[in-house]
Amino acid sequence: MDDATTTRDRLGLEILPYETCLELLAGEVVGRIGLVEAGEPVIVPVNYVLDGTSVVFRSLAGTKLDAAERHRAVAFEIDGHDATARTGWSVLVSGVAEPVDDAAEVDRLERLGLDAWALSHQAQTSWVRVRADAVTGRRIG
Amino acid sequence: MDDATTTRDRLGLEILPYETCLELLAGEVVGRIGLVEAGEPVIVPVNYVLDGTSVVFRSLAGTKLDAAERHRAVAFEIDGHDATARTGWSVLVSGVAEPVDDAAEVDRLERLGLDAWALSHQAQTSWVRVRADAVTGRRIG
Repeated sequence: MDDATTTRDRLGLEILPYETCLELLAGEVVGRIGLVEAGEPVIVPVNYVLDGTSVVFRSLAGTKLDAAERHRAVAFEIDGHDATARTGWSVLVSGVAEPVDDAAEVDRLERLGLDAWALSHQAQTSWVRVRADAVTGRRIG
Repeated sequence: MDDATTTRDRLGLEILPYETCLELLAGEVVGRIGLVEAGEPVIVPVNYVLDGTSVVFRSLAGTKLDAAERHRAVAFEIDGHDATARTGWSVLVSGVAEPVDDAAEVDRLERLGLDAWALSHQAQTSWVRVRADAVTGRRIG
């Protein structure tokens, strides 16, 4: 849909409104965390859930949890495309990762229905929240 | 499939052989470039094609092309999942981005059949190659 209210970036891509980005974030189950490790970018897929305006996921000890414990800058991305219709979209959340330590908060997150099938064989996971500093989205086609 | 030859990482995920990673890379059309901008990670989706053992894509002037011109470290990721079957996989290419300047090389890439629908409204694109230093893949479920 291209009407008078559509805003485009310098590449001609449609800029998605914040509310649309949140709707797309609420509708997906797998996204990707972008981290910087020893100065180099790394991308790791995660099962996630949108909690209000922040992204939360479970993590085992490792890169992602380390990033959370250090309150490091992370990116979180989701996208979709339809090759036949030649359309595509993406949403990028830029923010800081932080561990969720509060017991009541963990209890609440446990009830959000995150399908942590990727980690179902592992009991020892911790919750990580990506507190969004910026949420941006683009659509093409 | 889980047989005697399956290797697992410390999280219990199946480690995909290099050849399997290349087959998966050859079979997808959209992936994500991970970059570091001002110390912070950014993830941007791209239409790509596998050229031998490296990932190539078109880029307009901007973040991705800047990274190429500076021969910066980038990540490239593809993934897939089946929520019903509770299976998923991902492949991560870590390497250096570089511009493709050689005219004969550009001519050859133009014939690889990259579906650059994302940029079809823009004529002024340049080719970028991600020369892989490492290709790793994981599968769950």
